[in-house]
Amino acid sequence: MVDYIGVSDVQRIVQSIGIGTFIERLSRQIESDYRRWSDFEKSARLASHSPVGVIELMPTSNGRLYSFKYVNGHPKNTNEGLLTVTAFGALADVDTGYPLLLSELTITTALRTAATSALAARWLARPESRSMALIGNGAQSEFQAIAFRALLGIDELRLHDVDPAATAKLKQNLERCPEFEGVRLVVARSTAEACQGAEIVTTVTADKCNAVILTPPMIRPGMHLNAVGGDCPGKTELHPDVLRMPGARVIVEYEPQSRIEGEIQQMPADYPVTEFADLLAQHPRAGDSSNATTAGAGRRSASEITIFDSVGFALEDYSALCFLHELVQEQPEFGRKIDLVPRLDDPKDLFGGTLGAAGMKPRARLRAVG
Amino acid sequence: MVDYIGVSDVQRIVQSIGIGTFIERLSRQIESDYRRWSDFEKSARLASHSPVGVIELMPTSNGRLYSFKYVNGHPKNTNEGLLTVTAFGALADVDTGYPLLLSELTITTALRTAATSALAARWLARPESRSMALIGNGAQSEFQAIAFRALLGIDELRLHDVDPAATAKLKQNLERCPEFEGVRLVVARSTAEACQGAEIVTTVTADKCNAVILTPPMIRPGMHLNAVGGDCPGKTELHPDVLRMPGARVIVEYEPQSRIEGEIQQMPADYPVTEFADLLAQHPRAGDSSNATTAGAGRRSASEITIFDSVGFALEDYSALCFLHELVQEQPEFGRKIDLVPRLDDPKDLFGGTLGAAGMKPRARLRAVG
Repeated sequence: MVDYIGVSDVQRIVQSIGIGTFIERLSRQIESDYRRWSDFEKSARLASHSPVGVIELMPTSNGRLYSFKYVNGHPKNTNEGLLTVTAFGALADVDTGYPLLLSELTITTALRTAATSALAARWLARPESRSMALIGNGAQSEFQAIAFRALLGIDELRLHDVDPAATAKLKQNLERCPEFEGVRLVVARSTAEACQGAEIVTTVTADKCNAVILTPPMIRPGMHLNAVGGDCPGKTELHPDVLRMPGARVIVEYEPQSRIEGEIQQMPADYPVTEFADLLAQHPRAGDSSNATTAGAGRRSASEITIFDSVGFALEDYSALCFLHELVQEQPEFGRKIDLVPRLDDPKDLFGGTLGAAGMKPRARLRAVG
Repeated sequence: MVDYIGVSDVQRIVQSIGIGTFIERLSRQIESDYRRWSDFEKSARLASHSPVGVIELMPTSNGRLYSFKYVNGHPKNTNEGLLTVTAFGALADVDTGYPLLLSELTITTALRTAATSALAARWLARPESRSMALIGNGAQSEFQAIAFRALLGIDELRLHDVDPAATAKLKQNLERCPEFEGVRLVVARSTAEACQGAEIVTTVTADKCNAVILTPPMIRPGMHLNAVGGDCPGKTELHPDVLRMPGARVIVEYEPQSRIEGEIQQMPADYPVTEFADLLAQHPRAGDSSNATTAGAGRRSASEITIFDSVGFALEDYSALCFLHELVQEQPEFGRKIDLVPRLDDPKDLFGGTLGAAGMKPRARLRAVG
């Protein structure tokens, strides 16, 4: 039997262990996997394009476990009451090829993206950072807010979206969270206003174009930028001049993919970037909230402008599937079992072990042919 | 909600509609999809190799529906009581990117392979063919036997395997099938003996090497060869001289894939082959058992040696998933529903619609951080 985690299971898991703890534990798994970067097979996504969207398969493996994610992107879906992005995936044992876990990944992707953003920020943002501008208040924004609250102790969020209804929805959702009691939620009339006084700026906008969300006048020395929304060819959020600012350094997940999908698609091929795994390799001690000395340890100076150019990499889905699989191993009631693969007494007798009994009843007689 | 078909569901479906009818209906779906050949995106498999096996993703799409199959190949598994090959897959709506069906494909792949073999044989074997040699009596052999019984009315099966236990298992399984009452099952001491008097020869052996199962002295004019076991690089079953026999013609599923994986990997790149879709295109009327005039209509002469060099193509998995999806649309009790994708009242509010209520209970408080 294969473990299964559906939407209701993820809801139950998050309710049971708490969303902050979930994101914190997941971020530890992601950091630990990034520290084994060279073990992972890094292949391109396998994309199937149609006039209205794309369906992709994102596989990876570290030689011990294999994972893939199915994910679609259909911007027009929201007009039909459907999600732009849905996802699911599986974890498998490389030694036997058997699937171990099948899981929903729509909610989980939002959680892993936020966990990755906050993880990078814990290494890169100045440790005293407590105010974050959150530009783009759509489907991903609550997850980002909660991750930064949980991992960095953000106590002021400065919200802006071109659609005031999106900001109202985000504000309402956060105000219902006990975790955000005492957190100042400031609704800003512009991106520039949102950035005023913020030490961290997260952009997570949805427009599929080369948008200019952030420009140099909004950026101050020492800021950390978490650029999440620019994540496919033709979709960026930062004015290229931001990337050219003195003291700016771009950190990416996987350089070959980010050159195509990230903010740096706007820059020449020799524009220097740092891979997150390389940054971690310089700091052997794991960073977590119980280890304050690693906070901001990834930056070169207090005035450096650190830019995490996040596009989402298959390793993070691998980490999420491993984390969920660990959770159901620890607490079987977190998941369910499905009969995705046959169990046979004799593996050489597929027919006898499956259909031999079931398929051959008299009522199943073949009709005469020939 | 997404439809789910597990191992027990496939067992129930086959029991309910009968394995012969299942294979016959599936073969019609496969023929109908091969007739829309040019609509399909044909991409390579995405393979992840390890020292002990391979895990592959096989996607395809015709612009309306998208499918992929996850499949592993681990020859050493049988020594550990596990299957060499397991598989599962999904069908999705190209217009929305939403998954529609998730299904087991271990049993279903054996059914679709047999359905494809028998479908090709109905077009290629001489209509009077009633005796089939079945070389290789392992996990796939019952499925092949049943498909040829159902679609071609085979009344003699001549069995051979290097492992007598495999033949004994096959014979026992078939003797339990009411459908095989009156069918002569002949156990042959050699491949040559099995081929004597047979009009069709099916090879479905498991050795992962360039084996020589069939040689020219075993082959007579007018025979149809169904070469199933040679299906990956380095794995073939026919002596190359069989492919060079006068009057021999090779029919493949998808030429670029078969050049690498099929029997024709042994031949020069310009060795002529016919794609099955091209053959069908010359015969606009669908072939099925109620239409005897199409039987053998794909051969050029009564003496031609037709060789179906089958490796298994993603389109056939697509057909199988479509067929299963149709079945659960007609009879919902054939499947189950799983919550693989969230349903939201407001697609722009992923958090509020999923975790907003569930994740934010007091017990889920974040621990103080920072």
